[in-house]
Amino acid sequence: MYEFQTYEQKTSTECSEWKDETGYMIDKARQRGVQTAWDRLEKQTPQCNVCDAGLSCAKCVMGPCRIIPGLDRERGVCGADADLTVARNFGRFVAGGSAAHSDHGRDLVEVLLEIGEGKTDAYEIRDEEKLRRLASELGLKVNGDIKALALALARRLGEDFSTFGPGLAFLGRLPQKRLALWEKLSITPRGIDREPVEMLHRTHMGVDCDPISLCLHAARVSLADGWGGSMCGTEISDIIFGTPKPGKTKVNLGVLKKDMVNILVHGHSPVVSEMILLAAQDQEILAAAKQAGASGINIAGLCCTGNELLMRKGIPLAGNHMMTELTMVTGAVEAIIADYQCIMPSLVTVASCYHTKFISTSDKGHFPGAVRFHFTPQNARELAGKAVMVAVEAFKNRDQSKVDIPVEPVEILSGFSNEAILDALGGTPDPLIDAIKAGTVRGAVGIVGCNNPKLKQDYHHVTLAKELIKRDILVLVTGCATSAMGKAGLLVPEGASFAGEKLKGLLNALGIPPVLHVGSCVDNSRIIHLCALLAKAIGVDIDALPVAASAPEWYSEKAAAIGLYAVATGITTHLGLPPMILGSPTITNLAVSGLNSVVGAAFMVEPDPIKAGALIDAHISSKRVALGLSA
Amino acid sequence: MYEFQTYEQKTSTECSEWKDETGYMIDKARQRGVQTAWDRLEKQTPQCNVCDAGLSCAKCVMGPCRIIPGLDRERGVCGADADLTVARNFGRFVAGGSAAHSDHGRDLVEVLLEIGEGKTDAYEIRDEEKLRRLASELGLKVNGDIKALALALARRLGEDFSTFGPGLAFLGRLPQKRLALWEKLSITPRGIDREPVEMLHRTHMGVDCDPISLCLHAARVSLADGWGGSMCGTEISDIIFGTPKPGKTKVNLGVLKKDMVNILVHGHSPVVSEMILLAAQDQEILAAAKQAGASGINIAGLCCTGNELLMRKGIPLAGNHMMTELTMVTGAVEAIIADYQCIMPSLVTVASCYHTKFISTSDKGHFPGAVRFHFTPQNARELAGKAVMVAVEAFKNRDQSKVDIPVEPVEILSGFSNEAILDALGGTPDPLIDAIKAGTVRGAVGIVGCNNPKLKQDYHHVTLAKELIKRDILVLVTGCATSAMGKAGLLVPEGASFAGEKLKGLLNALGIPPVLHVGSCVDNSRIIHLCALLAKAIGVDIDALPVAASAPEWYSEKAAAIGLYAVATGITTHLGLPPMILGSPTITNLAVSGLNSVVGAAFMVEPDPIKAGALIDAHISSKRVALGLSA
Repeated sequence: MYEFQTYEQKTSTECSEWKDETGYMIDKARQRGVQTAWDRLEKQTPQCNVCDAGLSCAKCVMGPCRIIPGLDRERGVCGADADLTVARNFGRFVAGGSAAHSDHGRDLVEVLLEIGEGKTDAYEIRDEEKLRRLASELGLKVNGDIKALALALARRLGEDFSTFGPGLAFLGRLPQKRLALWEKLSITPRGIDREPVEMLHRTHMGVDCDPISLCLHAARVSLADGWGGSMCGTEISDIIFGTPKPGKTKVNLGVLKKDMVNILVHGHSPVVSEMILLAAQDQEILAAAKQAGASGINIAGLCCTGNELLMRKGIPLAGNHMMTELTMVTGAVEAIIADYQCIMPSLVTVASCYHTKFISTSDKGHFPGAVRFHFTPQNARELAGKAVMVAVEAFKNRDQSKVDIPVEPVEILSGFSNEAILDALGGTPDPLIDAIKAGTVRGAVGIVGCNNPKLKQDYHHVTLAKELIKRDILVLVTGCATSAMGKAGLLVPEGASFAGEKLKGLLNALGIPPVLHVGSCVDNSRIIHLCALLAKAIGVDIDALPVAASAPEWYSEKAAAIGLYAVATGITTHLGLPPMILGSPTITNLAVSGLNSVVGAAFMVEPDPIKAGALIDAHISSKRVALGLSA
Repeated sequence: MYEFQTYEQKTSTECSEWKDETGYMIDKARQRGVQTAWDRLEKQTPQCNVCDAGLSCAKCVMGPCRIIPGLDRERGVCGADADLTVARNFGRFVAGGSAAHSDHGRDLVEVLLEIGEGKTDAYEIRDEEKLRRLASELGLKVNGDIKALALALARRLGEDFSTFGPGLAFLGRLPQKRLALWEKLSITPRGIDREPVEMLHRTHMGVDCDPISLCLHAARVSLADGWGGSMCGTEISDIIFGTPKPGKTKVNLGVLKKDMVNILVHGHSPVVSEMILLAAQDQEILAAAKQAGASGINIAGLCCTGNELLMRKGIPLAGNHMMTELTMVTGAVEAIIADYQCIMPSLVTVASCYHTKFISTSDKGHFPGAVRFHFTPQNARELAGKAVMVAVEAFKNRDQSKVDIPVEPVEILSGFSNEAILDALGGTPDPLIDAIKAGTVRGAVGIVGCNNPKLKQDYHHVTLAKELIKRDILVLVTGCATSAMGKAGLLVPEGASFAGEKLKGLLNALGIPPVLHVGSCVDNSRIIHLCALLAKAIGVDIDALPVAASAPEWYSEKAAAIGLYAVATGITTHLGLPPMILGSPTITNLAVSGLNSVVGAAFMVEPDPIKAGALIDAHISSKRVALGLSA
């Protein structure tokens, strides 16, 4: 019988030494009787070994089946064995993540379309230069009216979501070798929606019964995300809200202000939160806030909506998705305004223990018990004002005597879009390539993704980052790993002190941090785009680059999709936790080894960040040597 | 704690009285040591109560979670409770089914596109009249070249799969009242691919946390199937392969021929199987068959590919999806040629116990160990010949002494497309409406869907049909229920003897059976279309009609999608087994009752077909009375 659970599984609060703001707030929540994800994880432990191994199937009512080799349950009723069952589950897992990113991208296409059609005055084109650049890249007419151009681009990217269109717009960014490999493997993504739908089809009983074929299609699904839905999301957001430029801001619970109306924007899209930001600057609303006894309105971010505002507007970040419940335990949060993804359903319950109002804004994301404003591009300005006013009203119910903001905020530097990085390099990637060749920057690693209550909060992100930068490996960070890096002092130029001697010299010369914040989780599309730019400039395929990705504390289907599109793009990816595939040695071996001979990259699964650092270092050395460089 | 498993769950082979061809072949398989689904179900029993109740969640790696109210596991790590967990699972279940049908429909659009573009000579337009009729219905130019028209229609239906197109082409078929209701509920399907993708998004952690909202979106997903993907599949198949007309053929294992090369086509699409049919008539290949010692080549159908050929070409049907393993136990099957859906992965294993070759044909459906031909519209003719030749070669390995075909085939009448029904009625539905008003036909019920080894094979289909027709209720049948009806003698005019007196008179006058075979499972789109035609002719919404649907022995995600689109269309639907929703009393109550006040129809769950017959009868009576007719 296959041995399950080869990795350590215990709830992270068992780590007694762990007493930063997270541990402090968990204790406080418990004293108050407020249940958080850590408590629920304890109640859910032990978790089901069969589900965890990917061996449960509930995709038809001949089942549900549990594939338990050795217990005379080798096959499900349909005949599916462990490999097939794991592959079906993993396929749908990746499809869930890819669909989430892509549906987010769709929303941005819709806003751009409405701008182009003149149907909204809430949104406008803030980066006309990028609009023209993208239009040119995609072969659209770049002269003429900005709205017409927006419309043309929206229509072109809208075609990415169809089956019978011209194919994904951004595939031209890839090196020819990579495209040829995908063609050979039949994993070139054909349509952003088509691939996850086909995955649902293939995993229906009696369609694709080959676990390897399913895994390859999972790669295709993930590529429709990375080079499709996510990339649309990033690029259009830049056009509408501005392409990020480096700037200072702050992170941690200390960004909450005792004397202000605190509004936290949560979720993933900038579409609503940018409007909230505008509304919070409205003089009438500010006057109302003052009348309510506050000195002003403080907008801070959570999770990836937070990252979007952080990158573009320098809005401080209160925390990542695992901190969302705990922010309210400060007693200082008037409202959480949420769009979609990673918004724990428990937030409404926690809010009800405080004076906090939980406000949902997306027609796709309803929350029973929430205050609900269904935003559209037409009503966004009006509803944003109303939503902010809900928070202002809530301030009147705040009990200041119970407010406990336990830390001072930490300064960070953010805004490292590819445009900003290239600008800093003088317009071409050549100086970076020279630094790589010289070994000043031995390589680069994107540390991305979520937090997970199974792991000691932030520890894995920070420890891995330190392990890498001390080896002269530059780190890029996105998503929920961001606040961890910030709190640890890695997002400021002074963080260079943690870097190896060569890297430190360069960082000090440029005045940049050892960890560059490049955005939200859809913005991992920036990282793969940058890798493609580097590979093309060097004249190699992406898998030849001395780079890697890592999701040390991931939890979500989206993270799995990101990891897989990174690997399928040629970027070896470390995971701190395995996906639910351990029930199939075949698929596990494919993931951690076999994929190398298929796409030139594979997964590493290693919960210990120190060991992971060494593994990634060895990987980067091997890529450097293969390029004829020093290890 | 909620009480699970309120319905009887035992494997159907425990019914000792059950000794038709199915029971006989199961016994024979066991004697030979060939494992079938019934054996695997026994090994999988007891099944997991938590999964079966819809209370397991493995959608992120904070989990897997088991929601077990009462055991201090009320919520998953994210905070999802039983209602939300069940809704998420059910939403993905329906999305799986909808995606399967819709991806099938996409294939037909692609073939039509290639015909229009002149890229294939394997396929052509067999029903030009229907092509022109549909083009006219959809407002396309209907004059001119047939290929140009095919291209225009393919492009228009291709738009159904996009997000930014004109909307679903066939929605104009619905009564205005129904469309207005969907708009009010925000469940008008916007794109065939968009809705299942949005369901994946909504069921990602932290998106749609409202179980009712998720169920409504599930309805939208299902409508994108019924009025989108499935309807495209049906209508284009008619145009390319011919609209079915009534004709005689045969069913059961007896359609296999001891002296012939027996080829079974299995799956759901006519695209490959129609080519196999042509290849089997090729003189050169027939000569090879004779040289191999066979008197000819016998094509018979399985599952819904079988239904497609049965409806249009009068090809006999060897059995439904639960019979697929057992067909090979006759020792008389040279090849199973499969496309996709409901093709048990075990078939390759069973084939390996015999001389049977298992041949896969779709790029979406791989089977390790199968002979593989990847069909495209370009190579279809060539590969069909090769596939048939594999069967001819296999015939040489048949051991005639072991051949056991235990029954004689039963005659049936098939081919009742809506066009055929309307033709028989003189071109308008009025005579049928008059018969309904007069009570000659008290109502109509579509009995659809699969078989399930948890239930006594075919018993529920046949018993329910007899219960209904004896009450003067006309039955339409599709999918895997077809062979059950055929074997029971309900698909021939003589079956009228089972009908009530009034219905019997009408059936005898028209010379038609009491159960009309209207096609495969995508062809349930014919039934909803017919209901819409009737409702419009009467001037009511569909939910006012004295009609119902039933899936007495269903097993698949597709069946759940069909059931839900029927209900959302206004057709109350009986299920012989519950979906995996019993862990949520909220959703269970919504399904069996609450939906009535939302969409004017709901589900009935009743495993006993005699009781189900009475329930459906009462439902039809109530609808008749509401229309001012006799009960």
